[in-house]
Amino acid sequence: MDRRLGSGFAVSLAALALTFAPAAAPALAQDDPAPPARPTFSGSDLGEGPWDFYSEYGPIHLEVVARLERPWGIVFLPEGGMLVTERVGRLRHIDANGTLDPEPIAGLPAMYTFGIAGLKGIALHPDFATNRLVYMAYSKIDPMDATVSSLAVMRGRWDAGSHELADVEDIFVADTWYGAAPLPERCCGQGPAFGSYGGRILFDPDGYLFVTSGDRNYGEMVQDPASHYGKIFRMTDEGEVPEGNPWVGLDGHEPLVWSTGHRNPLGLAYNPATGELWESEFGPRGGDEVNRILRGGNYGWIDVTQGMHYNGEQAEGIRNVDGMIDPVLAFGPPSLNPGNLTFFQGDTIPGWEGDMLLGSFSEGLLRYDTDQVGMPIGVPEHLLKQLGQRWRDVQQAPDGSIYLLTDQTTGAVLRLTAGE
Amino acid sequence: MDRRLGSGFAVSLAALALTFAPAAAPALAQDDPAPPARPTFSGSDLGEGPWDFYSEYGPIHLEVVARLERPWGIVFLPEGGMLVTERVGRLRHIDANGTLDPEPIAGLPAMYTFGIAGLKGIALHPDFATNRLVYMAYSKIDPMDATVSSLAVMRGRWDAGSHELADVEDIFVADTWYGAAPLPERCCGQGPAFGSYGGRILFDPDGYLFVTSGDRNYGEMVQDPASHYGKIFRMTDEGEVPEGNPWVGLDGHEPLVWSTGHRNPLGLAYNPATGELWESEFGPRGGDEVNRILRGGNYGWIDVTQGMHYNGEQAEGIRNVDGMIDPVLAFGPPSLNPGNLTFFQGDTIPGWEGDMLLGSFSEGLLRYDTDQVGMPIGVPEHLLKQLGQRWRDVQQAPDGSIYLLTDQTTGAVLRLTAGE
Repeated sequence: MDRRLGSGFAVSLAALALTFAPAAAPALAQDDPAPPARPTFSGSDLGEGPWDFYSEYGPIHLEVVARLERPWGIVFLPEGGMLVTERVGRLRHIDANGTLDPEPIAGLPAMYTFGIAGLKGIALHPDFATNRLVYMAYSKIDPMDATVSSLAVMRGRWDAGSHELADVEDIFVADTWYGAAPLPERCCGQGPAFGSYGGRILFDPDGYLFVTSGDRNYGEMVQDPASHYGKIFRMTDEGEVPEGNPWVGLDGHEPLVWSTGHRNPLGLAYNPATGELWESEFGPRGGDEVNRILRGGNYGWIDVTQGMHYNGEQAEGIRNVDGMIDPVLAFGPPSLNPGNLTFFQGDTIPGWEGDMLLGSFSEGLLRYDTDQVGMPIGVPEHLLKQLGQRWRDVQQAPDGSIYLLTDQTTGAVLRLTAGE
Repeated sequence: MDRRLGSGFAVSLAALALTFAPAAAPALAQDDPAPPARPTFSGSDLGEGPWDFYSEYGPIHLEVVARLERPWGIVFLPEGGMLVTERVGRLRHIDANGTLDPEPIAGLPAMYTFGIAGLKGIALHPDFATNRLVYMAYSKIDPMDATVSSLAVMRGRWDAGSHELADVEDIFVADTWYGAAPLPERCCGQGPAFGSYGGRILFDPDGYLFVTSGDRNYGEMVQDPASHYGKIFRMTDEGEVPEGNPWVGLDGHEPLVWSTGHRNPLGLAYNPATGELWESEFGPRGGDEVNRILRGGNYGWIDVTQGMHYNGEQAEGIRNVDGMIDPVLAFGPPSLNPGNLTFFQGDTIPGWEGDMLLGSFSEGLLRYDTDQVGMPIGVPEHLLKQLGQRWRDVQQAPDGSIYLLTDQTTGAVLRLTAGE
């Protein structure tokens, strides 16, 4: 314990680190789901491409692979090609030649697709090459009330060339059931009931599945260790609890939880160079974060945030609050609106070895140099900002190139490589 | 990658961070195993105790539990009591009342016990309560040449009250076979062939066994990724390779390796509050280190060290060398001679929650405040220094007290609690 870091010290550190831009507080009724409280950035038309730009270390080249509606997550197939989720509820196949199959893969359950709800992250089972199991997070409809939804993770078997997912089943359904009406009384002008699902998923090299779960704009639930709101889970490929999870066997704690105190964690990346899990999340007004996720960590929401609440209230805490882990990076106001993140491996784009790439809706693709332990350092380079896209996902393909998804109705899958 | 941190910058940082005390270089023949190149600290007679001291946060109380010869590692039994290794090759049982069984537990293999060789770290299988499997690292004798030894990990079954270990077998034998003569030509005045085994072991909550392996005073072997010199291994409870290890499937790499570039890693701790692995290691003259162990990390030895070689040569690199991870803490010259380390959990000693405790041979028991992500901060408190002991192991018992082992011929097991 360190008694020397008192609250006075914390406040002065925060004052040094952050400048809050005073902003008019939108007057939102707590139960009004209609106007999104966060200023949205709808994105521009992409155009045809290809494009050639310069990054700090040399030329880069970007081209469109396919056009999709609100693409959200992408995985690369061992036989070449990829699967891409569309938030509107479709799973798509692009083959090794970059040709999009015009027919979506059928067999997915009905899902809630209002607002930002819908089909989310995707991951392949570590033994996908033999068992062909695909995992996807989505917004599940309450079978008893179609206005109520929660986060779930399904899996199904997809054979190469097939147009249907087989043996589809949920391996996890969160308890974040929540709907349009009647809404519970909530503080701080939180947003609509069709938001903040989380839903980014990945397998780590030990074969554990990590799943992010948002606060459903009901942040008061997050610090309840028994609830699924605002958590990152670690589970087996069957959705079961690994013995090594931090709160296994503790009364009043959900044993699937790996970390807590998240608002809307939409990005999740494993850095193979360090073995660490990293996460990006939407905060409230400002307070977007990048976190290094530690086992059993509490990242503060709703008690602690770098941002302001949507109704303009200052959040309760700022930094250095006992028991809460501060973000590695914090943004805004104005909001960065972060997409997914990844750590670049290899040397296919010279100078990018180990760098952290972070998508955003308003500031392009951010590239951070990293130090020897994978921490981002200095001021990021803002790439592709001139294209005006909402960069939702960023993933490195087996060939070393970077694939990007744009979160727009007329969205796209793009491929970024070293230029000439 | 960060091009801005060039070698000039690295050197100037190092100059800011460290002051090297010029020291006369002992003239050691490279093949002379006799005089230890590091100044030794033999320790003082402990006395009877008990003792009462004050730490920064209040009174602490220390008492002798048992007297042992060169105790090295301790584990706590689910039925109460503990098992303790003596470096001279004996395994001892202390019952729940703190009574030492005068009869050692038999059944251990013959082992090499010259110099600092012998019986080392101990760990209980995660399912010990039912399978009663005890794991121990030791210096194994080459069956073909009794002057040659290597690090090995044995396991055996120990039933409560038994005076014999059953079903003893090696689950891992390192390839660091090395002996008194003929010694290979080595640089830098490295020490004798009966040193630098490593040998600290632990199971993490996922059930993987971590094993530290020293450089055997043959540091030239450490940066060879195929060798077992100067590594930390991760293995299953059967000594097999977990699929998630960083170098699995790469030609020329030993797949059991989790991290590399270590000299003599004698301390290893898992911080349950962060899920991170930490390590302490003996460097050369100065250059003792505490490291946060990342998957696939390279900690620099023999190319990079904060210390000086035993023959007085400056080491090749200092800090910020590409591809090498710098220590979190570095000590000396003069050397700290670190023992094991642990992260204090709970509140049985008020004010110590989350603190890092690090044994040393020359500077007492160091207590560091830690921040919210488990990093030691500020200047440590030096506890128990007045007792003049070589603090080899430090472990927290299930009742929240701290057990300490002194690495002395007339050594002891001690118990540290909050005072009154």
